[in-house]
Amino acid sequence: MKKIGVLTSGGDAPGMNAAVRAVVRSAIYRGVEVYGIYHGYKGLITGNIKKLEVSDVGDIVQRGGTILYTARCEEFKTEEGRAIAIEQLKKFGIEGLVVIGGDGSFMGGVKLTQLGFPTIGIPGTIDNDIPGTDFTLGFDTALNTIIDAIDKIRDTATSHERRFIIEVMGRGCGDLALWAGLADGAESILIPEKKEDLDSIVERLNRGLERGKKHNIIIVAEGVGHADEIAKAVKARANMDTRVTVLGHVVRGGSPSAFDRVLAARMGNKAVELLLGGDKGKMIAIQNNKIVAHDILDLLTKKHEFNENLYQLAKVLSI
Amino acid sequence: MKKIGVLTSGGDAPGMNAAVRAVVRSAIYRGVEVYGIYHGYKGLITGNIKKLEVSDVGDIVQRGGTILYTARCEEFKTEEGRAIAIEQLKKFGIEGLVVIGGDGSFMGGVKLTQLGFPTIGIPGTIDNDIPGTDFTLGFDTALNTIIDAIDKIRDTATSHERRFIIEVMGRGCGDLALWAGLADGAESILIPEKKEDLDSIVERLNRGLERGKKHNIIIVAEGVGHADEIAKAVKARANMDTRVTVLGHVVRGGSPSAFDRVLAARMGNKAVELLLGGDKGKMIAIQNNKIVAHDILDLLTKKHEFNENLYQLAKVLSI
Amino acid sequence: MKKIGVLTSGGDAPGMNAAVRAVVRSAIYRGVEVYGIYHGYKGLITGNIKKLEVSDVGDIVQRGGTILYTARCEEFKTEEGRAIAIEQLKKFGIEGLVVIGGDGSFMGGVKLTQLGFPTIGIPGTIDNDIPGTDFTLGFDTALNTIIDAIDKIRDTATSHERRFIIEVMGRGCGDLALWAGLADGAESILIPEKKEDLDSIVERLNRGLERGKKHNIIIVAEGVGHADEIAKAVKARANMDTRVTVLGHVVRGGSPSAFDRVLAARMGNKAVELLLGGDKGKMIAIQNNKIVAHDILDLLTKKHEFNENLYQLAKVLSI
Amino acid sequence: MKKIGVLTSGGDAPGMNAAVRAVVRSAIYRGVEVYGIYHGYKGLITGNIKKLEVSDVGDIVQRGGTILYTARCEEFKTEEGRAIAIEQLKKFGIEGLVVIGGDGSFMGGVKLTQLGFPTIGIPGTIDNDIPGTDFTLGFDTALNTIIDAIDKIRDTATSHERRFIIEVMGRGCGDLALWAGLADGAESILIPEKKEDLDSIVERLNRGLERGKKHNIIIVAEGVGHADEIAKAVKARANMDTRVTVLGHVVRGGSPSAFDRVLAARMGNKAVELLLGGDKGKMIAIQNNKIVAHDILDLLTKKHEFNENLYQLAKVLSI
Repeated sequence: MKKIGVLTSGGDAPGMNAAVRAVVRSAIYRGVEVYGIYHGYKGLITGNIKKLEVSDVGDIVQRGGTILYTARCEEFKTEEGRAIAIEQLKKFGIEGLVVIGGDGSFMGGVKLTQLGFPTIGIPGTIDNDIPGTDFTLGFDTALNTIIDAIDKIRDTATSHERRFIIEVMGRGCGDLALWAGLADGAESILIPEKKEDLDSIVERLNRGLERGKKHNIIIVAEGVGHADEIAKAVKARANMDTRVTVLGHVVRGGSPSAFDRVLAARMGNKAVELLLGGDKGKMIAIQNNKIVAHDILDLLTKKHEFNENLYQLAKVLSI
Repeated sequence: MKKIGVLTSGGDAPGMNAAVRAVVRSAIYRGVEVYGIYHGYKGLITGNIKKLEVSDVGDIVQRGGTILYTARCEEFKTEEGRAIAIEQLKKFGIEGLVVIGGDGSFMGGVKLTQLGFPTIGIPGTIDNDIPGTDFTLGFDTALNTIIDAIDKIRDTATSHERRFIIEVMGRGCGDLALWAGLADGAESILIPEKKEDLDSIVERLNRGLERGKKHNIIIVAEGVGHADEIAKAVKARANMDTRVTVLGHVVRGGSPSAFDRVLAARMGNKAVELLLGGDKGKMIAIQNNKIVAHDILDLLTKKHEFNENLYQLAKVLSI
Repeated sequence: MKKIGVLTSGGDAPGMNAAVRAVVRSAIYRGVEVYGIYHGYKGLITGNIKKLEVSDVGDIVQRGGTILYTARCEEFKTEEGRAIAIEQLKKFGIEGLVVIGGDGSFMGGVKLTQLGFPTIGIPGTIDNDIPGTDFTLGFDTALNTIIDAIDKIRDTATSHERRFIIEVMGRGCGDLALWAGLADGAESILIPEKKEDLDSIVERLNRGLERGKKHNIIIVAEGVGHADEIAKAVKARANMDTRVTVLGHVVRGGSPSAFDRVLAARMGNKAVELLLGGDKGKMIAIQNNKIVAHDILDLLTKKHEFNENLYQLAKVLSI
Repeated sequence: MKKIGVLTSGGDAPGMNAAVRAVVRSAIYRGVEVYGIYHGYKGLITGNIKKLEVSDVGDIVQRGGTILYTARCEEFKTEEGRAIAIEQLKKFGIEGLVVIGGDGSFMGGVKLTQLGFPTIGIPGTIDNDIPGTDFTLGFDTALNTIIDAIDKIRDTATSHERRFIIEVMGRGCGDLALWAGLADGAESILIPEKKEDLDSIVERLNRGLERGKKHNIIIVAEGVGHADEIAKAVKARANMDTRVTVLGHVVRGGSPSAFDRVLAARMGNKAVELLLGGDKGKMIAIQNNKIVAHDILDLLTKKHEFNENLYQLAKVLSI
């Protein structure tokens, strides 16, 4: 393999640039040329493809977002679209592809692999919702952005002795809410993986009030429902006022944390190693603090593992 | 005057603690005792009042929120409430009061002054909506929190080439939106002080798209309307998708900026000077980079001055 | 066991407060009283010991430093000193102790254990120099502080096209330098674990210059030598000017990262579990992303494992 | 005037990029072309000059450093060098120049003005050492970086109950030390403008110890002497241990604060206005919160005004 491609797809995540850099330099170090494909799979179809040199990925390790851009691409979901993509790859002489993105993005990679074009995935998403990996690229940075915001909210919550409901991203996976809630001492953590009834939420709020707690924070993953609605329900049940803050897209951006930069370096390098070694259809993962790889088709039948221990620990520590 | 009190009232703002520290130490330096009144005017009525020593305000200069807490107090708005407050002040031997808060809070101070109890105000609010002062305490910190958030949103906006509508606090005063929009190169700045029609907003978005701008940001003060509604209007008029982020209470918290800490020091010290010098019914202000004082009753008939130049400059720079 | 104690000892590290909170609440949750011992082992001798309630550890999860303070204590290193300490513990009815600190601090715990007083250690130090654990409490936060500083230095390095030598803490262990260098794309990483000769450093600087790199960064752990001396050596060998920055105690402080807060929660809880379960003389660790415990005496014969892979990867990515 | 140039010179400062953006867009808005001159005056001589379009300065408002780079240039100090520079400017048809930098850089601009080539200066330096302006571009950002670092040091200082001596930049002007010391409650502030004898420093340290202060911070501007030497002197005089931290080039980098971005916008726009209006040999300044301009030759005979009030206030507040 003398030429490989790299693209970012799906929602952007901090550390994607660091991963692109790692892919490019690991490949060039091994004498392989790298091509950047712009705007995700769309760029594969339109041929928005450029050769990347060592210095093209200089000074990006600390940047949020992705210099390769990302986009949705309906056309690539069709057989015709993928045929055009394969043609473009052949035109540029690209023989293998690294896809950085979420599980939706990996399906595209699997299709290419099935068409005889080897692809390796790197899990890049803040949601930590991908099976087979303890952490996705961007999760740690997003978590730090969230706790920084909650720390700020806590100042004002304490000054006014108010209760806050804070909504964070996470449709199917509550990891952002769970880790942030544990890290910031939230009274209640509402996540899709666990049912929590309104009475227990209200009871925990009351318990905090009783022991003179100056601030009370409920953190909710968007998959559970809107923070506004929960505020209304709390008001209806217990005549208790709460303030709502939705931490939206702020959490997606920002300079990657040290953990994410190092993870990006390790995953990008591993992806190149596997691709050059003849592997395909795999996703790089970190498990038990080791960089490993899993078959993507296997993964797609699984669900990201929920950490019951952390959930219980959060309950213990917010007494 | 041998004993003075200090309280924080209204919405909390970064720098309130630094101002409390400055009041306490400036007074003690001049041989005067200081009493902290907790939970704003409510504490005046309930007698939640404690003597503050030099070290009680140690290690708070960098803290967000207010160690004296803040609260609404309906009772103080009645004649009976204020009579109780005066009694409490007499009980503790407190002869003068520094009130740190917004213009609503100053009305309470004016009432006390009219009852023969001298009061000086320090403008503490992130909104910069107080007449007679170029800057309120907390405005600079809030602004920095906002631009930090917009910088993060920009990462993801650029990666996806998306348009964002970002709502910030500011009911009657658009200064947070105006300064943040100028500081961050927003395409449009929607503030209560200026009418901007939908066509011009859409036109500016289109212009950005045409010259290949990767991100487009509209910043809107809450006084103009909800970001959600503007997003819907833009969609209806121009079939253009936008993402919405509401920067809520996050902006109220956080460690005060250097500017706000120094401002707090200067204002707190000046308030003590005036009070001990026999002044009353005045608000400390910074105008033309000088610490001055204005009669509060005069101020309450005025409106915070709108900076037309900054508004026009923002338009020039976002071409 | 009905009463346990907790102390922090040695150099402070971000996350120590979060760990104290976790110990206190985990114990109270299980019906056990907790006593805070102030100023490390010194407080054991002087009897500076206070009962901690749930709310005494409220609002500290996000604070740097340690509310229990830390100090050196020569007296505790003597037999007499330790006898006094045991008496104090008996006086308060404390039956077990959690020690949060570095390996020096654990020796004290081992001595107490040998005297029949059960002790469990939690590795709290930014240096990541403790054997048996992948990460120490505070390491992740310190790393993020370092990369934030290097990102800033990079702005000025790039503007002037200058070379910088940046010294970070780490006497016997180069992990801070290694991880930060990998995370920030340093040209050379000088750590006690690996010899790197001056010629190779100069060669890498020259290579960077040749490919038009705007900034060149050498990161050096203090255990290798002073940055100043390395700058002089580079000047002498290659007539090349470099700027030096020593990131000193700044790196020790600051609000703990999400990773460190969660780690503190898990370790603090585990320490209480072990202590109440009859364990002693052990240190809590995180290995392969699992919370485990090791015999301290065993550990003290070992060295923190050096990650050769990361070191080689840093070389690959800084081509 | 149909074409103007812009360059950055001297030490870089946060906000330089925002000022370049403002110059470029203000000029283009008025129908004038702008040329970027790279590497300061050196680029004038080598002809490293490129036309800048609106989008060339997109996405830089938040970046530290300067995209135009900066460098020293001995050749420009000679008559021959300046003659070549004038030729280059003529070759590109550039009729006026905006120079962003410190007072050294303005001398070059004055020389060009004297040769008939109109030049306007924008004061960009973190040191705030330029006469005629209350604030230089970059000062506010540097100040915030410094207080963030001191807040971190305070965590560790408090935990160990240690005294710290912190050195910041500032050769002839102590403003960074003065403002940071006031903002962070330093015990002593040592600046070139004021003599402070060792006895008084020691006395203030002792006073802090006596009233149980957990941390004591002395902040020193580099113009006064090295922090190391002061530490030795304190040790010799009072047998008191102190820790030293030198906040070096970290303070020069980083994303500009809101204040600096808005200041950059206003100054950049004003510089273009003046240049197009026929002005020359002037420096833009902010005085009493208004953007004004002064004759550079006049300024160079003056000294930046020292704020005695702030200095005295710092003493009052650190009792």
